[in-house]
Amino acid sequence: MNNPILVQAWRGGAVESFHRGAVAVVDARGAVRLSLGDVDRPIFPRSAVKALQALPLVSSGAAERWGLTDAELAQACASHSGEPLHVATSAAMLAKAGLTPDALECGTHWPSLDTATRALAASGQSPNALHNNCSGKHAGFCCLGAWMARVQGQEAAGFLRGYIEPEHPVMREITAALETATGTRLADAPRGTDGCSIPTFGIPLRALAQAFARFGTGQGLSPEHARAAQRLRQAVAAAPFHVAGTGRFDTRVMERLGERLFCKVGAEGVYCAALPELGLGVAIKMDDGNTARAVEVAMAAVARALLPLDDADHAFLDGLASVTLKNWNGREVGQLAATDFVPG
Amino acid sequence: MNNPILVQAWRGGAVESFHRGAVAVVDARGAVRLSLGDVDRPIFPRSAVKALQALPLVSSGAAERWGLTDAELAQACASHSGEPLHVATSAAMLAKAGLTPDALECGTHWPSLDTATRALAASGQSPNALHNNCSGKHAGFCCLGAWMARVQGQEAAGFLRGYIEPEHPVMREITAALETATGTRLADAPRGTDGCSIPTFGIPLRALAQAFARFGTGQGLSPEHARAAQRLRQAVAAAPFHVAGTGRFDTRVMERLGERLFCKVGAEGVYCAALPELGLGVAIKMDDGNTARAVEVAMAAVARALLPLDDADHAFLDGLASVTLKNWNGREVGQLAATDFVPG
Repeated sequence: MNNPILVQAWRGGAVESFHRGAVAVVDARGAVRLSLGDVDRPIFPRSAVKALQALPLVSSGAAERWGLTDAELAQACASHSGEPLHVATSAAMLAKAGLTPDALECGTHWPSLDTATRALAASGQSPNALHNNCSGKHAGFCCLGAWMARVQGQEAAGFLRGYIEPEHPVMREITAALETATGTRLADAPRGTDGCSIPTFGIPLRALAQAFARFGTGQGLSPEHARAAQRLRQAVAAAPFHVAGTGRFDTRVMERLGERLFCKVGAEGVYCAALPELGLGVAIKMDDGNTARAVEVAMAAVARALLPLDDADHAFLDGLASVTLKNWNGREVGQLAATDFVPG
Repeated sequence: MNNPILVQAWRGGAVESFHRGAVAVVDARGAVRLSLGDVDRPIFPRSAVKALQALPLVSSGAAERWGLTDAELAQACASHSGEPLHVATSAAMLAKAGLTPDALECGTHWPSLDTATRALAASGQSPNALHNNCSGKHAGFCCLGAWMARVQGQEAAGFLRGYIEPEHPVMREITAALETATGTRLADAPRGTDGCSIPTFGIPLRALAQAFARFGTGQGLSPEHARAAQRLRQAVAAAPFHVAGTGRFDTRVMERLGERLFCKVGAEGVYCAALPELGLGVAIKMDDGNTARAVEVAMAAVARALLPLDDADHAFLDGLASVTLKNWNGREVGQLAATDFVPG
């Protein structure tokens, strides 16, 4: 099946490049509101499901036990930009659970925000695992694991070792939460290894969208997970800087729309979102894996089409669904723009 | 028309993302050797035609008059990484023509090589126009313009001002060279503004491939342009670091294959190449504009299929047509691989 063109990059008066993809909008019972392209092919959701993977952190009682704040819970759901406040927040999460950054098994990379990387380099420092965009998610895993170890009477650091492996007790909890939310038997799903070394499972867009409808409404989740979902949505809406960072799409959108839209980007052109007031979940995957410019524009177009908006919020999403491109001299050279793929 | 899938990104045992595109392989008379997808849609070749835009620099006598070296001519064809040697070389080109970096109108950006950016930041400096990946091309334009000014008895810096505009005498020379090489009437072509502010014209892949067959053989070019093309190909083969930079595809391929393959990447997923011994030119455009990972892999697959190769060179191109992906912990997580799109 050829997926439809969702986003076009214009230069001058011509389409220079274009991005195909698939979109599913589904309610908590699985009723399909919108289906474009192949929504049944298993795709790796990557970081777009971090909020589902954070459910056990809250439902287990670990978040409450360690006294995690809104910012810290938001960061457990985050792909952050490695800015100083992100680094400090991941470190604080670990410290609350009696752990050090040595517990993190996500690997190291330079901050994804260019200015943060240059500031780090200018200060003569190198990055560590706290700068990894997944350090908040991993700190959340470690907080969960430290609580599991405490309950079982084990020493936390030793218990945690190898928590990124599929069969580790911590990762089994996380995978079970993902399995329940998506209603997918993950033992039979395609499995890959994510950038931060945890498993990622191939799940159809249709099931991902349904999972986020559940995440946004609590319907179809256990009472514990429904409460955890609500807590995480509130936390991200209260501290949206921590789910992404300076100038980033998720941060900007949730700063503006708060709990009306929970959205989360994933590598390789994935977006998942919940629209609680409509009872809907959204999942998008670009064929070509383009995250930075294609799937964000598509996500903005979906949100604009589905949510009832006042003029100001409509204009805000217009600005994200159609982005002016400038060159190194600041000249306007073109546009990124969503096609009219969502029925009005 | 749906263009075929040229490159797939695998994760675990599944295709995670994929890239469609079109490919034209044509000889100097316009006979099509290979045509995949829509090769008649005008596409913006961007930086892939820098070598054609450098023809007047040589054919005018400017390169000889200013004593430009192989490295400097290679850099006139380059999208370089902004490394210190690139910066020094662009500055030297300007100095030979009696100009300063103030002449450059390409705009400024941080070096495209991460380590070069971090070293610059660590030294407390900011980039200038010499760090722009196009500074060598623009220095070449300025060397041409300074020579034109000299011939006309004008002051160079004043003559050059505004050289990036379509109607400036320098840009008219460059556009005329592109028009002749591609056999395309550019006044009727879609026109956009490139990242460095010069015009870029929509040209079908079929015509771009023919232009590079001409560039590789001299057939169909004026004697002056045929000699200039040969000089530029020799220069790039002699100094391939200057056409790209550390670890970059064009540099690696031409370090290995020398004058057997002239290839040049362009923004938004474009490649152009000349295979002089076969009398063929190649032009590729990825639908989604993915340069970094998709079009390079496709280019390697085309070169591997067309060129007679010994085992070592075949293995070298195999390594570029199928690239292992590792994550932040160094674990192998997948592959980028060309599909079997070129008939064996």
